[in-house]
Amino acid sequence: MGSAVDLGNNNMGEFKHLVIVKFKEDVVVDDILKGLENLVAEIDAVKSFEWGQDLESQELLRQGFTHVFLMTFDKKEDYAVFQSHPKHQEFSAIFSTVIEKLVLLDFPPTLVKTPPKAAPPEAPPEAPPA
Amino acid sequence: MGSAVDLGNNNMGEFKHLVIVKFKEDVVVDDILKGLENLVAEIDAVKSFEWGQDLESQELLRQGFTHVFLMTFDKKEDYAVFQSHPKHQEFSAIFSTVIEKLVLLDFPPTLVKTPPKAAPPEAPPEAPPA
Repeated sequence: MGSAVDLGNNNMGEFKHLVIVKFKEDVVVDDILKGLENLVAEIDAVKSFEWGQDLESQELLRQGFTHVFLMTFDKKEDYAVFQSHPKHQEFSAIFSTVIEKLVLLDFPPTLVKTPPKAAPPEAPPEAPPA
Repeated sequence: MGSAVDLGNNNMGEFKHLVIVKFKEDVVVDDILKGLENLVAEIDAVKSFEWGQDLESQELLRQGFTHVFLMTFDKKEDYAVFQSHPKHQEFSAIFSTVIEKLVLLDFPPTLVKTPPKAAPPEAPPEAPPA
């Protein structure tokens, strides 16, 4: 019944907040991650949050950065709510002391290729690779 | 009937490929985007692809980077397929001529806060904020 509810987040007004960092050497990254988990759990404006650690790409390409943090908001206004939230400001003050360098990008995402949510009905057979 | 198919991509073996760039001044970014769209459309190993342009954050924080490209793969092996694909290599050769700087991070994502896919059934009522 649900009809085609969400085909993906294709230009639906979402807003993303991306941070890539290199932590200082003596930092216990797990503590920071815990803090981030708590932060996003406490602030409803954050729709979703994922992070990752690059352990593999060439140093020349990642340029010392090791961690990616990506938050998704339903709309830009929700990001503004997050930014001005006292708990975020509190966390940011701590965060700024543990990073060696950081790049931050905020942007409305454009989803070009949508992940298939399930097997497509009646997908036309294509010639399999040899 | 579908049961709870995907609760989110929570540590399901996915692999992500993140690139942030600053383009050279005379580059027609739309042409590059078109090329990327074609690329991901042609390579099945790419599960999803989204991009964004930061127009707002502080220059001090984004450090000249303007564009984010994020590809998602079902598994790390799919990323390897993408990387070694002739069309990707062809595109990369062009891409490398149009960028002033770039950071690239490859990582298995950990989804900490999952976006609600729909209204949860029988969510317990919580005290609304005043």
